[in-house]
Amino acid sequence: MRVAIVGCGQLARMLALSGIPLGIKFSFIADQGPEMNIDCVAGLGLTVPWQAGDCVSELYQRLGQPDVVTVEKEQLDINLLKALSEYCEICPGVEAVEKTQNRLYERQLLDGLSIPVAEYCYGASVEKAARQLAYPFVLKSLDNGYDGKNQWLIKASEDLAAFNSIQQKPEVLAEKWLQFERELSLIAGRNKEGAMVFYPLAENLHCDGILHSTIAPAPDISDPLLAQAQGYLTTIMNALDYVGVMAMECFVTSNGLIVNELAPRVHNSGHWTQAGSFTCQFENHLRAITGMELGSTQTYGAAGMVNLLGTSEPPIKAIGHCASLHWYNKEPRPGRKLGHVNFVEGSLDKVITHMTAFEQCQKTA
Amino acid sequence: MRVAIVGCGQLARMLALSGIPLGIKFSFIADQGPEMNIDCVAGLGLTVPWQAGDCVSELYQRLGQPDVVTVEKEQLDINLLKALSEYCEICPGVEAVEKTQNRLYERQLLDGLSIPVAEYCYGASVEKAARQLAYPFVLKSLDNGYDGKNQWLIKASEDLAAFNSIQQKPEVLAEKWLQFERELSLIAGRNKEGAMVFYPLAENLHCDGILHSTIAPAPDISDPLLAQAQGYLTTIMNALDYVGVMAMECFVTSNGLIVNELAPRVHNSGHWTQAGSFTCQFENHLRAITGMELGSTQTYGAAGMVNLLGTSEPPIKAIGHCASLHWYNKEPRPGRKLGHVNFVEGSLDKVITHMTAFEQCQKTA
Repeated sequence: MRVAIVGCGQLARMLALSGIPLGIKFSFIADQGPEMNIDCVAGLGLTVPWQAGDCVSELYQRLGQPDVVTVEKEQLDINLLKALSEYCEICPGVEAVEKTQNRLYERQLLDGLSIPVAEYCYGASVEKAARQLAYPFVLKSLDNGYDGKNQWLIKASEDLAAFNSIQQKPEVLAEKWLQFERELSLIAGRNKEGAMVFYPLAENLHCDGILHSTIAPAPDISDPLLAQAQGYLTTIMNALDYVGVMAMECFVTSNGLIVNELAPRVHNSGHWTQAGSFTCQFENHLRAITGMELGSTQTYGAAGMVNLLGTSEPPIKAIGHCASLHWYNKEPRPGRKLGHVNFVEGSLDKVITHMTAFEQCQKTA
Repeated sequence: MRVAIVGCGQLARMLALSGIPLGIKFSFIADQGPEMNIDCVAGLGLTVPWQAGDCVSELYQRLGQPDVVTVEKEQLDINLLKALSEYCEICPGVEAVEKTQNRLYERQLLDGLSIPVAEYCYGASVEKAARQLAYPFVLKSLDNGYDGKNQWLIKASEDLAAFNSIQQKPEVLAEKWLQFERELSLIAGRNKEGAMVFYPLAENLHCDGILHSTIAPAPDISDPLLAQAQGYLTTIMNALDYVGVMAMECFVTSNGLIVNELAPRVHNSGHWTQAGSFTCQFENHLRAITGMELGSTQTYGAAGMVNLLGTSEPPIKAIGHCASLHWYNKEPRPGRKLGHVNFVEGSLDKVITHMTAFEQCQKTA
């Protein structure tokens, strides 16, 4: 069995490290051409550079004729996936990737399924959006919106003027600014037979738009809230006949659960499953797309994850007995996600104590 | 940090797969020369062929100047380790490997530490051994004794005659045949500061001298038995100033716990820790030898492991939701260890049910 992954980042790396024990061979499509940084996946499989216009038949051959192609990111050339679908399976399917890589299509998908999203406005002038949504609101580019990039918080007309003065503005969707109590992630896997598994809801903490840390299971989750979240994700995955792991980020607001974003892949907010669950999200994604039975998502006590942003060396001296390190082998740059640390303990309180101590230790290092 | 491993088998593979996330780079010494099968570790690091007589300084350079050298097997050239110790750390130390790769030295080490072993006889004729130990007894070669190889059960004088007729007999040690209730494995890690962690005692089932399956924690372990086993292994590891993971196989007999064998490395009877513990034996070995804090050996419910012997294909259709597969990428041969499957569940009964169903499924496949 050979799996090809579009992308060469840390998610591709962790997919490969999870899949090699299953006897799977990997290939990686360096879809930004030969210059793409491939350190993350070095040695873990065949890496083939590709750029729009290159021959797809040749790509398929150079990838070692994979049985299935999957993705590790949202922003990729849909035409590449469509072309590859002539040669092998694409999981998740092209439609799922296409709809979730574009904020407008994603909103329309959710609207069509009657799943609540923040009030939005598209296609009108930003001034008209301001009148419809009232301040504050957020302008979000339709694509390339990960890690808080390409978003503008508009609190007043001055911000609107500032946005209007940007050269080469991307196409945007205006969205009502939500006062939310917290952000939750739900990660599920669905296999080819339509069987599904859910990980517990996890709670995310962002700093400057980038995921900083996750704890799981999220505390104080009522049964109706859990059922609602699982119901939404089931509806979405069934509607797309989705095969693989999907992450759904949502806000808990005074008006209930609002879906903020879908990721058609393994997700940073599910990295804790490497330490806290019998089967991690990476293995379950691979089990789904290769036709295996999904693995148990049974979790052990409580878990947490802290991203390592811009840390130049693996912090091995700060890894305590309840912690495990995942280093991505990327070129260090300030603010770049270079690794993460997972924590497992008997209770969430203990996990948070370890996470806090680790971060303190990192700050003084 | 670069770790070089003497050997290229499945233990080297699983060490590398556990260590890559820690940011460790790997090199492998193919110590049977260029013909050695290196499929297990293909892509996971630098592989350098080596044979006795080759230049060690050049080997060290070609290995990428590792910080530490470790081992994945007992039968290796001690002179290689001694020569490499001029260039970098060797963990576990040369003495530990030397004493455990030879059955006589191992017995003498244990005798010196007053740790009970089966009554044995060395240096006399096998006829004299027969008189001292009485039938039945076992002749075991001093080295190359893994997986039941090079052992002869001597039940009566005819067996003795048969043994005597063997051409090129290895040097042997005669050992009283023990009637044992069960075989247990204890696996521990010890770091450079002398801190230790223990995994729960596991129970092993052998078929034809080869480990067939393990369950953990072993049922019905009394506190004194556990304390005795942990005490023995602590004494041994401290005496050797051992750094890394060590496995101790012992027999439970009517005369108490008898130590059968020491393995100065990660061990097949500890593979279940990949699924059943927060930190697996492979990661803990690496944490020990690279100067990290040892990881928690906290275990989840109950676990089991079944070896895949001679299975020609990864049995992905037989992997249920509580099972995980570790395939070694080795050339299939009848009876060869080609992979293993781990099981985790809430109770040992459930684990055994899954293991039995899996084996049934394998038989009918």
